[in-house]
Amino acid sequence: MAEATRAVGGTDTEPLYGLTTRLARAIRAALDSGDRERVRLLVGPLHYSDLADLIERFNPGDRRAFIDIMRGRLDAEMLAELDENVRDEVVSQLGAKETAAAVTELDSDDAVHVIEDLDEAVQQQVLEAMPAGDRALVEENLAYPEDSAGRLMQRELVAIPEFWTVGETIDHLRESTDLPDDFYDIIAVDPKHQPVGTIPLNRILRTRRSVRMKDILAPNLHSVPVTTDQEDIARLFRQHDLVSAPVIDDSGRLVGVITVDDVVDVIDEEAEEDLMRLSGVGETDIFRAVLATTRSRFSWLSINILTAIAVSVVIGFFEASIREVVALAILMPIVASLGGNAGTQTLTVAVRALAMQELTGQNMLRYIGKELMVNFLNGLLLAAIIGIAAGWWFGRVDLGLVIAGAMVINLIVAGAAGSLVPLGLQRAGIDPAIASSVFVTTMTDIVGFVAFLGLATIFLL
Amino acid sequence: MAEATRAVGGTDTEPLYGLTTRLARAIRAALDSGDRERVRLLVGPLHYSDLADLIERFNPGDRRAFIDIMRGRLDAEMLAELDENVRDEVVSQLGAKETAAAVTELDSDDAVHVIEDLDEAVQQQVLEAMPAGDRALVEENLAYPEDSAGRLMQRELVAIPEFWTVGETIDHLRESTDLPDDFYDIIAVDPKHQPVGTIPLNRILRTRRSVRMKDILAPNLHSVPVTTDQEDIARLFRQHDLVSAPVIDDSGRLVGVITVDDVVDVIDEEAEEDLMRLSGVGETDIFRAVLATTRSRFSWLSINILTAIAVSVVIGFFEASIREVVALAILMPIVASLGGNAGTQTLTVAVRALAMQELTGQNMLRYIGKELMVNFLNGLLLAAIIGIAAGWWFGRVDLGLVIAGAMVINLIVAGAAGSLVPLGLQRAGIDPAIASSVFVTTMTDIVGFVAFLGLATIFLL
Repeated sequence: MAEATRAVGGTDTEPLYGLTTRLARAIRAALDSGDRERVRLLVGPLHYSDLADLIERFNPGDRRAFIDIMRGRLDAEMLAELDENVRDEVVSQLGAKETAAAVTELDSDDAVHVIEDLDEAVQQQVLEAMPAGDRALVEENLAYPEDSAGRLMQRELVAIPEFWTVGETIDHLRESTDLPDDFYDIIAVDPKHQPVGTIPLNRILRTRRSVRMKDILAPNLHSVPVTTDQEDIARLFRQHDLVSAPVIDDSGRLVGVITVDDVVDVIDEEAEEDLMRLSGVGETDIFRAVLATTRSRFSWLSINILTAIAVSVVIGFFEASIREVVALAILMPIVASLGGNAGTQTLTVAVRALAMQELTGQNMLRYIGKELMVNFLNGLLLAAIIGIAAGWWFGRVDLGLVIAGAMVINLIVAGAAGSLVPLGLQRAGIDPAIASSVFVTTMTDIVGFVAFLGLATIFLL
Repeated sequence: MAEATRAVGGTDTEPLYGLTTRLARAIRAALDSGDRERVRLLVGPLHYSDLADLIERFNPGDRRAFIDIMRGRLDAEMLAELDENVRDEVVSQLGAKETAAAVTELDSDDAVHVIEDLDEAVQQQVLEAMPAGDRALVEENLAYPEDSAGRLMQRELVAIPEFWTVGETIDHLRESTDLPDDFYDIIAVDPKHQPVGTIPLNRILRTRRSVRMKDILAPNLHSVPVTTDQEDIARLFRQHDLVSAPVIDDSGRLVGVITVDDVVDVIDEEAEEDLMRLSGVGETDIFRAVLATTRSRFSWLSINILTAIAVSVVIGFFEASIREVVALAILMPIVASLGGNAGTQTLTVAVRALAMQELTGQNMLRYIGKELMVNFLNGLLLAAIIGIAAGWWFGRVDLGLVIAGAMVINLIVAGAAGSLVPLGLQRAGIDPAIASSVFVTTMTDIVGFVAFLGLATIFLL
């Protein structure tokens, strides 16, 4: 390890992350020159997350060569950190038996995380290659709905009877050999194995041995039902600054524990999902193959081409007006474009606020009113700019007035649609991030063209 | 508390969050009827985060009334959870002296968090009203750059000499009276007060009293320099599943500790920032006043109206062609619109991948190649659809061919601009989330119109 560090010019001070560009380059060079020993030497000290990053960044050919060299020496936890698309490749190279062996080493939550994303056929093969006991645990978790507490929780936890003392608990921990790798709270349970409270480890350490555990419980018990959606779990952890929470089944019995490191991944995932959906990218696809990416993005574009054609049909109604005043064709994209921008501003704020539960029945009307006001004011400002510019450009005051009027109308529509569409979709049980922007921009496009061309037809011809 | 719960129809089972719609309504009703005692009774059991949510959702009038009733009974930690805009209102109502008293109760990281966002004049008043010792600590943290480890860290921590035994450490913890409220790791330091390692509390609990702390250190020490940017800190915690990390100054001495609950807030904040910036909303403004919101959103719209006018000028070059074939005006928004959609897909993936450091020198060329390919393929599909539709609509095969050709060209440009612009901005030190979309959509607009109208001028006239 010392030699490896020296070899890539590292120093004694640990960098903030394990995988520096320098190290990545050195590994690539060793790989290119076929120096298997050197690859292993350089990779040795890497944390499993950094190893996952390294594997993600390889092209498919280098990736195969790398996995081949590292076979049998890879940290199983690396599998849980890989991007889904890359993981599929790695698993298919390792084969069901080797994958099953790796998965068996993992905590149950990581094992489920790896297995749940595999293709069904591969998933079945891997499960069959696992020891019966581990397999049963994983299958039980897989039976819970996707993105639920049951999928996220780990089975490995520390539970003790509530009547134990601090001393008894410490003695128990010193003698146990099957404790989880990491834990932050101990869960006190009653005789029915229902949680009665959690005790943060620091409370145990600062309390005398004779004190009973039930007397040092944390003030609030946050038990999470096993079917709770991960988004709600993330909100709970964020809101109450938790590091772990017990998971209970229908009868209130303790079945697992969720830890903050998994919740951090959920928060990342949910934020990324909203971002991608708003832009019409189904899910992050940076590591996905070309054809799969093309297909998934096309589904969004195919909706947009239909709405774009619909907008053109609307423009077509004003063919005669455009023929008479060509300036209309030149100016018309401005009104639609600004309406789209303003509508997107409004809907993005609404989508995020809905996801964070900041927008509720209580402040909804106030929020809509505010968006109408903000967009109306911006409409006035934009109308002044474009009215003067257009009037001066074409030397026609009436044309300036028409485009200014259309701009104000379209910005008000942008405020209304941008706030009402996400709220309506949410109420209808549809994720507002998925569909809001196509609805809103279609509306601002159509209203933008109709308002401008319509007013022009009335007042200019 | 029991009465309060019964009063709002709660049951014995704790809801996942403290603030139910039902409870919020009951509080509002009590507020409306001026029943101060009942408001206090209902609010009593709320967690400070839920209290902050409640205060955020009030309109400004109700908020004043509520703060007035709760004055002197508010949990200081609530202040740290409030949205910045709402916090300004609350602080100005409480006044400098009461705010200073509340801030003094907080851990140093929360105190800094509250104070750093206040207007400078108010900030100065609050600082002056604080006891000298607390004030010095806060001012020291405020001297570090915004969004750095120095701002994020808390001073309260547990550090012990590395040569202590587990037993000595536990005895020390039992006897200390000034421990932080919560802690997850103990930091072992050398005589120069430089961290030599961290020890997770669960390792202490499972180890016999006679073992030396330096023998149970966690395998990697992740010390964070005090000037590290919070985005890098978030990445470190996420990558290595940390719950806390020591912060060191220039000379390597331990000065504070960062805990995962603060990092969760940072992750949320950074994700939200990217989302908002991509849509041209400077920062989340749901709780901001109308005029401030209008101003901040207008800065984005004013850039967009300039680019929209530039696009119109470009269209103006083709005035003669449009006059001759009005179908061009009717169809031209389609090419620009789809180019914009496809470009946005590509740039969103790039912006997110850059933020997550998934896009590096190593895989950049491969990524750009992939985006060109994906957009080219989608361009072919869209070209087929729109070519046939337009040709049939206007009964002109040549018009269909022209729009199909323009679509392919514009989608390739969308792929190139969508991937190169964010990468270029990042390299130039500009946040790609801020400026990418205006660059990319302006390019796809201009290329869309020029390709379509240009090809039409060449082949149709």
